[in-house]
Amino acid sequence: MTLSAQPAVPHLSGERFRVRYLIRAAEADARALAETICNEQTVEFPEAALPAGAIRDQVMGRVENFVSREAALHEALISYPVESAGSDLLQLLNVALGLSSLLAGVAVEELYLPPGMLSRFPGPRFGIEGLRALVGVQDRPLLCTALKPMGLTSENLADLAYRCARGGLDILKDDHGISDLLFSPFEERVTLIAAAVGKANAETGRSCLYAANISGPSDVAIKRARFAKEAGADALMILPALTGFELARTLAADDSIGLPILTHPSAAGGFVAGGMKSGFSHYAFYGTIPRLAGVDISVFANAGGRFPVTRDESYAAVAGCRAPLGELRPILPMIGGGMGIPRLPALREEFGHDSIFLIGGGLHTHSHDLDANIRAFLAGVGAS
Amino acid sequence: MTLSAQPAVPHLSGERFRVRYLIRAAEADARALAETICNEQTVEFPEAALPAGAIRDQVMGRVENFVSREAALHEALISYPVESAGSDLLQLLNVALGLSSLLAGVAVEELYLPPGMLSRFPGPRFGIEGLRALVGVQDRPLLCTALKPMGLTSENLADLAYRCARGGLDILKDDHGISDLLFSPFEERVTLIAAAVGKANAETGRSCLYAANISGPSDVAIKRARFAKEAGADALMILPALTGFELARTLAADDSIGLPILTHPSAAGGFVAGGMKSGFSHYAFYGTIPRLAGVDISVFANAGGRFPVTRDESYAAVAGCRAPLGELRPILPMIGGGMGIPRLPALREEFGHDSIFLIGGGLHTHSHDLDANIRAFLAGVGAS
Repeated sequence: MTLSAQPAVPHLSGERFRVRYLIRAAEADARALAETICNEQTVEFPEAALPAGAIRDQVMGRVENFVSREAALHEALISYPVESAGSDLLQLLNVALGLSSLLAGVAVEELYLPPGMLSRFPGPRFGIEGLRALVGVQDRPLLCTALKPMGLTSENLADLAYRCARGGLDILKDDHGISDLLFSPFEERVTLIAAAVGKANAETGRSCLYAANISGPSDVAIKRARFAKEAGADALMILPALTGFELARTLAADDSIGLPILTHPSAAGGFVAGGMKSGFSHYAFYGTIPRLAGVDISVFANAGGRFPVTRDESYAAVAGCRAPLGELRPILPMIGGGMGIPRLPALREEFGHDSIFLIGGGLHTHSHDLDANIRAFLAGVGAS
Repeated sequence: MTLSAQPAVPHLSGERFRVRYLIRAAEADARALAETICNEQTVEFPEAALPAGAIRDQVMGRVENFVSREAALHEALISYPVESAGSDLLQLLNVALGLSSLLAGVAVEELYLPPGMLSRFPGPRFGIEGLRALVGVQDRPLLCTALKPMGLTSENLADLAYRCARGGLDILKDDHGISDLLFSPFEERVTLIAAAVGKANAETGRSCLYAANISGPSDVAIKRARFAKEAGADALMILPALTGFELARTLAADDSIGLPILTHPSAAGGFVAGGMKSGFSHYAFYGTIPRLAGVDISVFANAGGRFPVTRDESYAAVAGCRAPLGELRPILPMIGGGMGIPRLPALREEFGHDSIFLIGGGLHTHSHDLDANIRAFLAGVGAS
């Protein structure tokens, strides 16, 4: 033994959280992999060299259940002591996936956190109900578009925002590719767009929201968020795969900001499991985790668009946004990708009213008349 | 046209950076995908609805070269205007990969940034030369281990650190799974380990470095980094897949901290391309990008360990750490995974002297005598 035979270990509560993994491998390999994960995600230590006692018995992960779904697809329910996840969201994700993300065919399907752990996360400030109250629309899905293309000046983008807000869209967001660029510097853009949307709202009596794209190193990002709030932006968008989810949590928890948070999946491809690709399920990555981080609107790419997403994955993303999760509010999925007007009735049927449809190119290609296109999209979601 | 036919666009410099993509698809599909990427990663806008002029001609990506390596493996060299990447590292990664990460079989193989763009990134503060000067070892690869397992108290970990530093290891780091836990709260642990390593160094006359694991929301992370510096830690470790690379850049650029930065691949599986999995190459993710972020030591999992990594991928990671990159310093790859003593001579041969070998379980399983194990590892890297 290179470690003392009986190292001191603080008393553990005995409370455990559970992670349901999907493992793609033959059964014997999947069972072995589940045992590897128990070690890898906690002690990451040769079992033979672990001293007897609490570390081996309580700190390590433990396979609570193993179910074969198919010959090469198995579920392992693994529990971990709540103490292993510390108090950071980052550490929770680190224990749930961590280095196992480098393995092949391992997906974190769902996180099950006991109430005491969930209560450490205040969660979304607004959620579905709060967002609907801000927008003032109760009875239909909401419509959003991204202000683009990259290369437009801040004035161009503000003009587009004015026309979209005036035309009746519910939410406008910066394009995820438009951060602080020569074409449209952050402060200038946010100021002009917020003013343009405010002007349109004053004219229509509606409450179209504008979400500003917050990027940069974290100290810069927090300053930008404060600036956006001052300038009159109504919500904040971040790219959690590049910023980390903790930025959402920091912004959501800041009472001096107090705006809804929207997450966008740029660079998230690798975080999301699929086939032999390890990662988080759509349910966890677009639902549970954003909610733990205090996100109010979670954007994801839908099946039937240009990305290889299955219908079941889309349903899972939406379910993750709305399913019960302790006291944490349900949130609005923002469903993007291939959003043409002919698809809207079916999408309403599939995803239900508590959804936001993200209109992309269709807003500019349905006809040459932007106002007419907006009206057609609004009719498609049942706006009267 | 829903946009004005001739939107104002600021004058572009004409300077472009290039990204070399690997695309796994049949040739016609790969060519089409390359064109899609040009649009997706910049304007993300229907081409038919783009006005003529600078946005179409200069803002969009442009396929500069297309080479078929195999029937289903092609290289596309795509250029983007330097203005599209703004000044954030985050935005550069967003343009290089962004939503294309959701596609299948697209890898960012290499980033080629013109000198003007590279000069925005001060890069590593120490690099290979600076790190070697700190450790005081010039003529052999360095040896590091992680202090673990999770569950040990801060006193246990400090005791282990003392013995490892005393025994002659060059660098000790917190385990990536040990952040701010009940077992070993951050401030207590860092204080005790830094003191233990300092005591060992005073006794041996050597300069073993201790790298503290910095996690948490960004404001907390920065506070922890300052605390670690005050407490006598010699380096800072972060998990960029969970914190974002901008945190490394923020910490590296902070003159009041001024410590080497070490990155660890926890949760990075999805960011790293492989097979049909989209992402960054090992060269980019473990080499170029950390260096842009100011990282001095980049940990990766080597071939031959427990993760499905190829030998070529390992070589690429190492090459990315050391290849010329404008004025940015070369950095030390920290090579982990399957690091047994019998492999060391071959690994020295393969990866060269400017490497750090990360000893894992082998430190505790080679024999029951920790001191003897350290001596054997040191002999394996040619320490006299």
